[in-house]
Amino acid sequence: MLLNCDLGESYGSWTMGLDAEVMPHIDQANIACGFHGGDPLTMQKTLALAAAHGVTIGAHPAYPDLAGFGRRSMALSAEEIIASVHYQVAAIDGMAASAELNLAYVKPHGALYNDMMAKREVRAAIMQAVSSYHRPLKLMLQATPDAAEHRREAEEFGLSLLFEAFADRCYDDDGKLLSRRKSGAVHSRDKMLAQVKQLKTQGTLTTVSGHTLPLHADTLCVHGDNIEGVKAIQDIRALVAGE
Amino acid sequence: MLLNCDLGESYGSWTMGLDAEVMPHIDQANIACGFHGGDPLTMQKTLALAAAHGVTIGAHPAYPDLAGFGRRSMALSAEEIIASVHYQVAAIDGMAASAELNLAYVKPHGALYNDMMAKREVRAAIMQAVSSYHRPLKLMLQATPDAAEHRREAEEFGLSLLFEAFADRCYDDDGKLLSRRKSGAVHSRDKMLAQVKQLKTQGTLTTVSGHTLPLHADTLCVHGDNIEGVKAIQDIRALVAGE
Amino acid sequence: MLLNCDLGESYGSWTMGLDAEVMPHIDQANIACGFHGGDPLTMQKTLALAAAHGVTIGAHPAYPDLAGFGRRSMALSAEEIIASVHYQVAAIDGMAASAELNLAYVKPHGALYNDMMAKREVRAAIMQAVSSYHRPLKLMLQATPDAAEHRREAEEFGLSLLFEAFADRCYDDDGKLLSRRKSGAVHSRDKMLAQVKQLKTQGTLTTVSGHTLPLHADTLCVHGDNIEGVKAIQDIRALVAGE
Amino acid sequence: MLLNCDLGESYGSWTMGLDAEVMPHIDQANIACGFHGGDPLTMQKTLALAAAHGVTIGAHPAYPDLAGFGRRSMALSAEEIIASVHYQVAAIDGMAASAELNLAYVKPHGALYNDMMAKREVRAAIMQAVSSYHRPLKLMLQATPDAAEHRREAEEFGLSLLFEAFADRCYDDDGKLLSRRKSGAVHSRDKMLAQVKQLKTQGTLTTVSGHTLPLHADTLCVHGDNIEGVKAIQDIRALVAGE
Repeated sequence: MLLNCDLGESYGSWTMGLDAEVMPHIDQANIACGFHGGDPLTMQKTLALAAAHGVTIGAHPAYPDLAGFGRRSMALSAEEIIASVHYQVAAIDGMAASAELNLAYVKPHGALYNDMMAKREVRAAIMQAVSSYHRPLKLMLQATPDAAEHRREAEEFGLSLLFEAFADRCYDDDGKLLSRRKSGAVHSRDKMLAQVKQLKTQGTLTTVSGHTLPLHADTLCVHGDNIEGVKAIQDIRALVAGE
Repeated sequence: MLLNCDLGESYGSWTMGLDAEVMPHIDQANIACGFHGGDPLTMQKTLALAAAHGVTIGAHPAYPDLAGFGRRSMALSAEEIIASVHYQVAAIDGMAASAELNLAYVKPHGALYNDMMAKREVRAAIMQAVSSYHRPLKLMLQATPDAAEHRREAEEFGLSLLFEAFADRCYDDDGKLLSRRKSGAVHSRDKMLAQVKQLKTQGTLTTVSGHTLPLHADTLCVHGDNIEGVKAIQDIRALVAGE
Repeated sequence: MLLNCDLGESYGSWTMGLDAEVMPHIDQANIACGFHGGDPLTMQKTLALAAAHGVTIGAHPAYPDLAGFGRRSMALSAEEIIASVHYQVAAIDGMAASAELNLAYVKPHGALYNDMMAKREVRAAIMQAVSSYHRPLKLMLQATPDAAEHRREAEEFGLSLLFEAFADRCYDDDGKLLSRRKSGAVHSRDKMLAQVKQLKTQGTLTTVSGHTLPLHADTLCVHGDNIEGVKAIQDIRALVAGE
Repeated sequence: MLLNCDLGESYGSWTMGLDAEVMPHIDQANIACGFHGGDPLTMQKTLALAAAHGVTIGAHPAYPDLAGFGRRSMALSAEEIIASVHYQVAAIDGMAASAELNLAYVKPHGALYNDMMAKREVRAAIMQAVSSYHRPLKLMLQATPDAAEHRREAEEFGLSLLFEAFADRCYDDDGKLLSRRKSGAVHSRDKMLAQVKQLKTQGTLTTVSGHTLPLHADTLCVHGDNIEGVKAIQDIRALVAGE
């Protein structure tokens, strides 16, 4: 089981995330492509950092909304989504190749990710975009009980998927993340590590109501916004690598 | 001698240029990459139009200045220029490849083009950017009496150049374009065609003061902003192809 | 009955709308404030044009979406809507005052307008924004059978409303505009003029299915995108003024 | 002698500066207006913070360059500068008035400030902008040996000026700031406090080569980027207030 993290989200003079501290401990870096964060120079530096640590890189495209950091849903048409994803993926892909790196996958960001999980037509547009890109790239999305259906959808596009689970988030019985507005939505350190262990060894997790939910995850989403996040990543890394 | 034209400069709901009317008559389309014009959907449509007419495509990167249409000089550092050019070139390159097209060259736009011609350090940054891109691309710049020096600079980067001349603009004795603020800066139809003919058959042009200036041009820059522009392109095309 | 029109929607080098042709024939200019169109220089020129023709001016705020021309719904929070409307209204208000003009009202643009009509919480945020602005401004919204309810909502904010009807659009029996995707959605010239006459003389309109719908309109929304639009405005003006 | 500080430069999800820590210790807040930082919500919150501490507010307009944080010179025409300054000043002015605050002055930001000090035509455009705004506002610029000339220029526009000095920066013999690239450009704490004391008690400062330079300053520019900056502000405040 791999660790993936959103990186390269600084913009111009504004810094976000402890990229240099996080990079040594992860496997996959989801790199912002300029629409929600990540100006060209930041992208270049993030690629160099990934290269230095041998981290696999993915594109992290978003809705065009700097002020909202790509977290506000926008009513783009399917063709607008496809063109916007192509543009962002192409930008990071060509910059990666120029740094002798190989872009491996696409993980949509923020509201585009949420809309992909919630709306079939957005998911179809994104799958269309990734599969019609000129090089084969995988699409990373959330591991849920609908994974089999998502796989079928992807097959129609000839597309390979990567499923990610969240280490520190409590799931409801439907396999969705418990809303951050509810108490217990974000796990304590102990619960987080227990969830990672259970995912790794048994391929299940325990939901908010105590049920056991099967969930296959190729990769775990971790967060490097602050020092606590970096420590959590190191703990998870030790646990995942250790056994 | 080829004809090149700036295209794909519409943005969202705003239309600019008669792209559909121009494309059948040119050889090289300089396609805007989103920084001065050209949203992702416009880029995609412009690529499709180029494909339909077998037109060679080039990236047309600019300073990040939508409101100024890339025509206002901006004091970017060399590393900002390099990263910005990489980003824009990569975006159009990957979108082109996804449309089964092959990006062939880079022509900077507006103030970035002017600064490239006027300032050695801007020119060096652009040459560094194009030559460090992961695929070989040519750089298009203005044909001037300094062409030999520009060629030497390019050789240091292992870079091939394309030189362009302007069909409809009057040149001063130094081989620079006469400022648009001066009378006679833009040729009448007859003078324009005479200048093209002279460039093609003799490799020279006649300056504002009547001197004969040798000028090698690989390609002629033409403009498709309006109906008159399209007619002029057709006239030039007939002249260039006819002999 | 007054005529209102969206103006000042050009942006930098991109032109939109026949503002100079339209301004002499309307009463109220809804001026873009920079978020969907209208750079500062365009705003200044549009204000000067309004002043020259004695046209009342309104702010035309939008979602922050240049590429989408403010036509794509965005999930802004209430406080983001309020702050964004304040910002845009303040910008045009201060520029208007500096041109010795008096901003009179606010009409949201595009998706923000549609969301205002469709969602009570967006409407509340906009009413909150306009009523908490430091000078009294009216809010323009669509005349519908819900007008009485909208008036009650506005009273809670101490806000005055202006209701607008559409001259050239066919209404359904619920008093909503027939979708542009349906045939007959946009009236012919004769039907448009008949609808204006009926609105003016009887305060009603005839719906798509032939019912008579009472509709009070303070102002008619007209469009100046092209020559046909300008001619239609002149026809409507003659009809409204003539009797 | 007052203390002024740039504030409200966060943007969307990106935080910049310790605004809450700085505000209690300053007299004048230069508030970003959206072009180099400061989205509408940040502006609103910064105004509320200024109100809570009774701090005088000024507009802090910039070139339209988010990615460059307004620090890159841009070749705007005079009319573009005037319209852009009007727009930004109006935006913060109307938002301030809606928070029952009174905008008092304008201090250009970054490259616009530097260009104002270096180029007479940029200074004239800014003076034209501020003086043609519909309410009287002062213009803050750098105290230099050219102050008398700047005052004469301002008088032609009927404009009042505020002159600021820098507490922590070493000056050269021409009264310009020593380039940050040179050693000794930024003072130690002791030198900073000595410079403030000298400015306050004698109206002079000691240049890099040891000369004594007369310099009248209405206000001192201080920086709240980090904890050290906040501590320095408190030290300067104690010194300025104490005697």
